[in-house]
Amino acid sequence: MSSAPQIPRASLDPLFHPRAIAIYGASSDPAKIGGRPLDFLKSSGFDGPLYPINPKAAAIQGLPAFPTASSVPGAVDLAIVAVPAPAVLAALQDCAGHGVRAAVVLSSGFAEVGGAGAEWQREITALARRTGMRVVGPNCMGVINVRRRILGTFTPSAAGFGLLPGRISLVSQSGAFGGYCLSLIRQRGLGLNLWITTGNQSDVDFADCVAHFAQDAGTDVIVGYIEAATDKERLIAALDLARSNGKRIVLMKVGSSDAGAQAAASHTASLAGSDQVYEGLFRQYGAYRARSIDELFDVAYACSLSTSQPAGRRLGLLTVSGGVGALMADVAAECGLDVAPMPADAQRRLKEILPFCGPRNPVDMTAQLVNDLTLFERNFELMLEEGGYDLIVAFLSSVGQVLTLSSALLVQLQKVLARYPDRTVIVSMLATPEVRKLYEAAGVMLFDEPTRAVRAARALVYFAQEARRIRNRSAPPPLPAAALAPPRHAVNEVEAKAVLASAGIPVVRELVAPSEDAAARCAAKIGYPVVLKIASADIPHKSEIGGVIVGVQDEAGLRAAFRTLIQRAGQNAPQARLDGVIVARMAGNGVETILGMVRDPVFGPVVMFGLGGIFVEAFKDVAFRVAPFGVGEARAMIEDVKGRILLTGLRGQPPSDEEALAEAIATLSVYAARHGDVLESIDINPLLVLPRGEGALALDALMVPRACD
Amino acid sequence: MSSAPQIPRASLDPLFHPRAIAIYGASSDPAKIGGRPLDFLKSSGFDGPLYPINPKAAAIQGLPAFPTASSVPGAVDLAIVAVPAPAVLAALQDCAGHGVRAAVVLSSGFAEVGGAGAEWQREITALARRTGMRVVGPNCMGVINVRRRILGTFTPSAAGFGLLPGRISLVSQSGAFGGYCLSLIRQRGLGLNLWITTGNQSDVDFADCVAHFAQDAGTDVIVGYIEAATDKERLIAALDLARSNGKRIVLMKVGSSDAGAQAAASHTASLAGSDQVYEGLFRQYGAYRARSIDELFDVAYACSLSTSQPAGRRLGLLTVSGGVGALMADVAAECGLDVAPMPADAQRRLKEILPFCGPRNPVDMTAQLVNDLTLFERNFELMLEEGGYDLIVAFLSSVGQVLTLSSALLVQLQKVLARYPDRTVIVSMLATPEVRKLYEAAGVMLFDEPTRAVRAARALVYFAQEARRIRNRSAPPPLPAAALAPPRHAVNEVEAKAVLASAGIPVVRELVAPSEDAAARCAAKIGYPVVLKIASADIPHKSEIGGVIVGVQDEAGLRAAFRTLIQRAGQNAPQARLDGVIVARMAGNGVETILGMVRDPVFGPVVMFGLGGIFVEAFKDVAFRVAPFGVGEARAMIEDVKGRILLTGLRGQPPSDEEALAEAIATLSVYAARHGDVLESIDINPLLVLPRGEGALALDALMVPRACD
Repeated sequence: MSSAPQIPRASLDPLFHPRAIAIYGASSDPAKIGGRPLDFLKSSGFDGPLYPINPKAAAIQGLPAFPTASSVPGAVDLAIVAVPAPAVLAALQDCAGHGVRAAVVLSSGFAEVGGAGAEWQREITALARRTGMRVVGPNCMGVINVRRRILGTFTPSAAGFGLLPGRISLVSQSGAFGGYCLSLIRQRGLGLNLWITTGNQSDVDFADCVAHFAQDAGTDVIVGYIEAATDKERLIAALDLARSNGKRIVLMKVGSSDAGAQAAASHTASLAGSDQVYEGLFRQYGAYRARSIDELFDVAYACSLSTSQPAGRRLGLLTVSGGVGALMADVAAECGLDVAPMPADAQRRLKEILPFCGPRNPVDMTAQLVNDLTLFERNFELMLEEGGYDLIVAFLSSVGQVLTLSSALLVQLQKVLARYPDRTVIVSMLATPEVRKLYEAAGVMLFDEPTRAVRAARALVYFAQEARRIRNRSAPPPLPAAALAPPRHAVNEVEAKAVLASAGIPVVRELVAPSEDAAARCAAKIGYPVVLKIASADIPHKSEIGGVIVGVQDEAGLRAAFRTLIQRAGQNAPQARLDGVIVARMAGNGVETILGMVRDPVFGPVVMFGLGGIFVEAFKDVAFRVAPFGVGEARAMIEDVKGRILLTGLRGQPPSDEEALAEAIATLSVYAARHGDVLESIDINPLLVLPRGEGALALDALMVPRACD
Repeated sequence: MSSAPQIPRASLDPLFHPRAIAIYGASSDPAKIGGRPLDFLKSSGFDGPLYPINPKAAAIQGLPAFPTASSVPGAVDLAIVAVPAPAVLAALQDCAGHGVRAAVVLSSGFAEVGGAGAEWQREITALARRTGMRVVGPNCMGVINVRRRILGTFTPSAAGFGLLPGRISLVSQSGAFGGYCLSLIRQRGLGLNLWITTGNQSDVDFADCVAHFAQDAGTDVIVGYIEAATDKERLIAALDLARSNGKRIVLMKVGSSDAGAQAAASHTASLAGSDQVYEGLFRQYGAYRARSIDELFDVAYACSLSTSQPAGRRLGLLTVSGGVGALMADVAAECGLDVAPMPADAQRRLKEILPFCGPRNPVDMTAQLVNDLTLFERNFELMLEEGGYDLIVAFLSSVGQVLTLSSALLVQLQKVLARYPDRTVIVSMLATPEVRKLYEAAGVMLFDEPTRAVRAARALVYFAQEARRIRNRSAPPPLPAAALAPPRHAVNEVEAKAVLASAGIPVVRELVAPSEDAAARCAAKIGYPVVLKIASADIPHKSEIGGVIVGVQDEAGLRAAFRTLIQRAGQNAPQARLDGVIVARMAGNGVETILGMVRDPVFGPVVMFGLGGIFVEAFKDVAFRVAPFGVGEARAMIEDVKGRILLTGLRGQPPSDEEALAEAIATLSVYAARHGDVLESIDINPLLVLPRGEGALALDALMVPRACD
């Protein structure tokens, strides 16, 4: 990465919407990498001119060939380059010299093999930056524009075209992953708009493509496979733009396990931020992270068909099988959806319609539906009208295998839904391809498997929440003018807390006492009971050497405790420079949390929050966000942590002051962003969250300045 | 449930393997419930005689009809009954009177609607018990035997037959669920043997069917959908028999959420044990619990094709996409599989074969595989030989869409696998139906989606572990001869612990002191520091009234603490009868756990284990088992709890004495089973687990005798 000022990069339009295409290294053999794109483009029905570039032949696959771009009779927007690696740079120079505005380099043998290849790739990047010609790859699978029938790729998955135009666009860093997705898209019959694999990302990268899709009128849903980001600012800007423009982003990021991270890292040469940082980033910018390829396309499918945004998370379940109803309810609860029961009166009315129905929620029509199709309409309407559900998942078993039945139900469904246009309905049933087309043409999504339908409902709720969240987004809080800069060297916890306090983070009341007598005076000022702790920048983990004594009740106890601490420090940390002993007010009852910041190699200062102790260490139950952010984002961060339940007031405890906690988190994020260049990490452990209205207090803190480069 | 001695129930052979079938209520209209089974049986190719029973017609659907079973010319094994509910009993009496050995009652209108229906159902049960004729239903979808082409059902899912014979048998309590599964089985092309839905279970129940499948030579895999068990002993016997006979059981049980449990309970009239008890039961008897219908059939499919049992959980991942490789590694880690790297030397050899491969694990062949098919054989063999993986999941993207490629790979795969017959291989790729058939005929399973392939691998590992576990199963430990019976009335914690100690559960050393002076003598005997606690059977939750003082250091402190406790008890629990104050030895450092037993309405005494505090309350991170069981099962129970990680020695703590913990759990299970009839519950909270070799100690215990009925 260069730190030189960035020139705004040229649009990707010539890449996705070329009027004319040149193919370097075009081969007469349609099975070869150089032959395949030409073969695909010829047979797919692309409506612009194709120019094979090959100095050794007069014609390739029946088209006149040209030795160079300069000899081509018309203008060329896009070049597809499939010559051997050592010849790629010359081909690109030829392109740039003759006004070609975008190039896709399919050839491999660059940074992924190292040596000369890495040098050639650097030269490609330099050429792209210098000329403004956008370059995709090298070592990629190319691009597709379905509506324009452009197959600028050699993936066998594109053979025979077989793609339906639609509103999903896909970007994959990995060519193999992108090719597999393309096959899946065909198999599932999903509608696709644009498709691109970015390979070694010498110029065009994942963020460029997301940003392009974000501004593309033909795209509603962005599907992405990202291995590693290299440029934080541009990735964030692209995700933010997509969200602002109402696009829904479904991402896959691998490497959450050690073996997975190893595999992902060996696959590219890029630096990768930690998996949990990506997780936080996706949450922060409203992207949905899929955990399987099924989920990736289930969610993309649902987003491509749903036009309404659920106002809440109330889910109605309508079913012909009590068992499947209960299964869906289980999965919904696991997903955090609210399977609220029907009102009592509406339950009575359902029982009048069908005495042996299950009226609660799930509403079970039983197999009786097949004998009386009107059950569907009546139950469905009652659920929308009286139940007030934001979404309904209807499980109809194998009804979709009978065209007459399913057409009749679709008519009812559309009739009712026309009166409730703000509600979302998802149907789960086994369906013939004909029935599936019928429903999808009417904008109704179908899932074979009921639990996948419920998970899709959850994703739609997520996106709707994110859309509301962005409307109510709060700006990062301002930093107080008096906020101190971070220390340039190791400091003790009192100094660290003083810096944090200056930035607006509440800290426990405490004083440093150099002597026993001073300690007694401090305690008298603060008020008993107090806590005594060794004060030394050289002892970051005090409790490990017995450097903390809590619950000191009176002056006699204080004097004894002072001597004990000094003695322990002398024994266990003889080299440490002591600043004395900290006398701190004994904090009230609260919930211990951990709040910190750390520099991520890709994303810079990131903020971490978790519940104290074993939650972080044993369960890694923490949330990350990229700094800075506002109080709203901090609240979302708290909600992302499972242990949050401890803040809600368990076992008769009072609920905690989550608002004060959120403010502390947002404040730290602003401080971290402002001073991230000179800070390695901050740990506030514990940040004690007191009962509601009483605030939160940093009891201990550690600040590590960044080592000079 | 009757408590009368049970007569052994007759075999289900006449149900699944009838020579001749009568159909009561046979209708000329093949769309009606009474017409459909006859229509199905006529057209499916069943090779035995069919007798429509209908007094109003001479012929039905072209077959001679008979007024009653007695007028039928030959013997009848199975009757299918589709007459209206009020006429069912007479039809069954007619059957039983003429030697019919099994009947399937499709009609509804019985216990599920209550009133007279419930009474009719009781009479059906009585008739079945009296005559020995086995009755399925009422209110069920019937039975299927695929090899015999018997479609004794009216589910539309059976129309046109369309079923392939195979080694999976299915039992579903729910007819709608069973019908949906049948459609899925057809859609997926799974091989099916027997299929049954048990409906209201007047006679034949879920356990009967599992027991039948367990003894059926044509069944390897049992798929079950259970809503609620009614007879613990027979369900356990059936699961145990299936496991002993090497059958693999994949079960779905719904109702883990409140809404789900409500829905499941309203669907049947049965009592349901708690969801977590079922979870424990399935683990205890080696059944695999699926959480989605996809998973139910993915696992059944894998089990029906895998012939080997993985010796361990080492998983090799072979891939053509680094990204998918990393994704599979992530899911494998989440599933507890070991994605161990290839040995360094083998990695070097892989690099020699293909310089830019990923050699670690996942092993990434890259798209280069398509250019050099021998890569597969060479890499695959190295992984088995040098990597020593128990299982390999190979992701081959869309290779399965090209017959020539995939046939060539299959030949390589079989060649290598022939030399490693103990290893399991799973292939993930998009495949044409032709390729799929080819692979499956060779015993190789195929999954479209790579994460589902990994989860299937995990299920195969689970079953193999279970098979090993049963071979090494330890018997429940004997109860000491001196073990005391449980108290018949509420007792204080000291008495409760004395009972537990007599049963062999280690308890903390403690004495009850009726007076301050006695307390001082007790403490001197036990040794300071001590803990003081109020002793009263009327105060089960002492800490809530401040009834516990820890860390009492000396006699002065003890006397003050004694008076404080008596005063607090007088203030906060003035009605409580006090037995004095407990003086207990202050236990050393350990991990607090909770161990208990409770009576489950279905499964009787069950044992619960969890880590202390919030793990149980906030996360419900507990494991259940049905009592009694041995130390091996107790170990498995400990491993089922996520918080177990705290026992392994976190943050430099010593590892805990898990062996002593397992012994305490098994001992409690034996005691619970022996005295479950007079006990409502036992809570040992905390059971302190000390460092390895130092044992475990019950610090507090609560025993609740069972209220007399």
